[in-house]
Amino acid sequence: MSQMKIPKGFRFGAVACGIQPQRRALALVVSAHPAAAAGVFTVNKAAAAPVIDGRPRVPAEGMRAVVVNSGNANALTGPGGLDDVGVIRGAVADALGIQKRSVLSASTGVIGQRLPAMKILAALPALAEQLGDHPDLAAEAIMTTDTRTKMAAREVVLGGKPAVISCIAKGSGMLAPQLATTLCVVTTDAAITPKLLQDALVRAVATTLNMVTVDGDMSTNDTVYALANGLAGNPRIADPGPALDVCEAALRALLGEMARAMAADGEGATRMVEVVVTGAPDERCASDLARAIASSPLVKAAIFGADPNWGRVLATVGARAGSQGFPIDPYKAKVVLQGVTVFERGAPVEIDREALRARMRETRIDVLVHLAEGAERAVAWGCDLSYDYVK
Amino acid sequence: MSQMKIPKGFRFGAVACGIQPQRRALALVVSAHPAAAAGVFTVNKAAAAPVIDGRPRVPAEGMRAVVVNSGNANALTGPGGLDDVGVIRGAVADALGIQKRSVLSASTGVIGQRLPAMKILAALPALAEQLGDHPDLAAEAIMTTDTRTKMAAREVVLGGKPAVISCIAKGSGMLAPQLATTLCVVTTDAAITPKLLQDALVRAVATTLNMVTVDGDMSTNDTVYALANGLAGNPRIADPGPALDVCEAALRALLGEMARAMAADGEGATRMVEVVVTGAPDERCASDLARAIASSPLVKAAIFGADPNWGRVLATVGARAGSQGFPIDPYKAKVVLQGVTVFERGAPVEIDREALRARMRETRIDVLVHLAEGAERAVAWGCDLSYDYVK
Repeated sequence: MSQMKIPKGFRFGAVACGIQPQRRALALVVSAHPAAAAGVFTVNKAAAAPVIDGRPRVPAEGMRAVVVNSGNANALTGPGGLDDVGVIRGAVADALGIQKRSVLSASTGVIGQRLPAMKILAALPALAEQLGDHPDLAAEAIMTTDTRTKMAAREVVLGGKPAVISCIAKGSGMLAPQLATTLCVVTTDAAITPKLLQDALVRAVATTLNMVTVDGDMSTNDTVYALANGLAGNPRIADPGPALDVCEAALRALLGEMARAMAADGEGATRMVEVVVTGAPDERCASDLARAIASSPLVKAAIFGADPNWGRVLATVGARAGSQGFPIDPYKAKVVLQGVTVFERGAPVEIDREALRARMRETRIDVLVHLAEGAERAVAWGCDLSYDYVK
Repeated sequence: MSQMKIPKGFRFGAVACGIQPQRRALALVVSAHPAAAAGVFTVNKAAAAPVIDGRPRVPAEGMRAVVVNSGNANALTGPGGLDDVGVIRGAVADALGIQKRSVLSASTGVIGQRLPAMKILAALPALAEQLGDHPDLAAEAIMTTDTRTKMAAREVVLGGKPAVISCIAKGSGMLAPQLATTLCVVTTDAAITPKLLQDALVRAVATTLNMVTVDGDMSTNDTVYALANGLAGNPRIADPGPALDVCEAALRALLGEMARAMAADGEGATRMVEVVVTGAPDERCASDLARAIASSPLVKAAIFGADPNWGRVLATVGARAGSQGFPIDPYKAKVVLQGVTVFERGAPVEIDREALRARMRETRIDVLVHLAEGAERAVAWGCDLSYDYVK
């Protein structure tokens, strides 16, 4: 029995299927009623078969299920890999008595090896049988080298009706010998059109999951699906307005929680880093710099060493500004580490280095860069680069 | 006495000056006659004081000396840092009896701390005294965490006259607690105009030093200076033609040798990686992808583990193509690791994984990606990501 609040009409399950030894690697999320569906995918041009298959099928009405496997990414597997997706979707539909086109899929794991579709097919009867209040099992099954399951829920009130938005996710830790992948399945009983769900999802992902950086690489399989089955009974959200705002804020809070959990659980990570860039001339500059700082190997290694080396932060800002042509001047920036201003007005600030070094040993590191060039801001999350990462 | 062939009229020296304990950290390169000078610098907008000082002063005639220190980058040091550069250039000029404006400088080391200019000044008399046939000492003094000195020379014939082009360099290994920096001083007795020397240097750096990636970050201090004093007596190269071509080819070969040496000596590196991208639709795409593959932490970690994980290579290609909008399709690419084709015609090739794994343990790893989308190519060099890197 899970502790996560589950939206009405959704069931979760997960079973072992022989893809990964001794653990659940096949998860299923099913809605009792047809759901509006939205999806956000990797922009990697070497997209995996389930991404190629799923991308054109959302946003859409009438979706019923998302099947997810770990252990094999079904990426760079050629036409055979796409066939495998079709076979699995058909078999899930048969097992649930629904239509094949109402089934979405996602995969994570090793690249370039054919998915053992027959193992998945053989496990489906047990999986269908086991469906119920088991988001924890589903969240566990989609993990690769995550050390903790990631799931959360928010309750909202829409047109006087209580509704729930929940999600299960896996993180983007560096996975040897697999590739990092972010997967997330959002479920809600709110009633909303596919188009507005898609718009809200795209915007929420932009400032949350897209701002997590563990290794700076973009997976072939990154996928976020959202299903909204309307069972909360609220007036269907079909136009922008307060109800959409409430939904989107909850979605953003949920995915933000997932983003921070992923950063904190990056492979081998000992510290989570939150990088805030303010005073940027435009949004693209703010996001790019925040991500660049959070993903710089030099910054990450300094943080692992609890070294208050703000020079690396500003050097990273300068490097990106130079290569991307951002109209900013690093010498005008203010840099704050763990609340201590270390660079301001074009020169280093005299600080108590030992005191700051002690604060750098905390498990959460806050880096703030104020550019003094505009009003835009962005937040990115990362982790340190530790010995375990390389291993 | 050095084994490197030295161009006529150049003297080298290096001494300890107290910036770094128990080692030489101050180097000087001097030409007996005024030299044409060219320079290529980091595009990092947080450029160090010696870069800000030197950038507007080349290309130019009449240069006589380059002074270089390690141990302190004089970066992000504010107006005081620029003052320090001026003081040091003036003192070098006084010690050598030349003009201050004929002295260039470069620094590498820790960021954000004032340069101990007085220590450098105090060491200048001994340095001037020691000048001679000591490029090896100068090459040693500019090292930070390099484990080997980097220097080389080429002999060419220009208008019937023998000339020598030589260089000393330091690599871009990740330096804790300092920032990575590439420094290179090229000296030649060829006669050439500053403008043509500059053009040749820019082109040669683009395909050599700019294609070395150890940590993907761009230093605040990267600097390449070239001095040509004309003592070879060749007709001065003032127009494009065969003589310039010969010079540029030698320069490219020299800097290519430095680039490979830097990659092989990346901090903690156990393997050097050469990435060749062919069949690209344009030069920018080819260079970007080659560098992206060579700097991907996932690819680097796989190479450290001797893991023939070509999926990471193609996933990196897909990620860059997606984020940069390159008109290529990773599924059309051919990937060759250590001479073994592993992906072709949209699908993995059946290979003997154990045999390839054995070949991945060699100290040099060759990665070839043929995109089948055009005729452009690029080569990048990197190293693996080992435990020592993090340390």
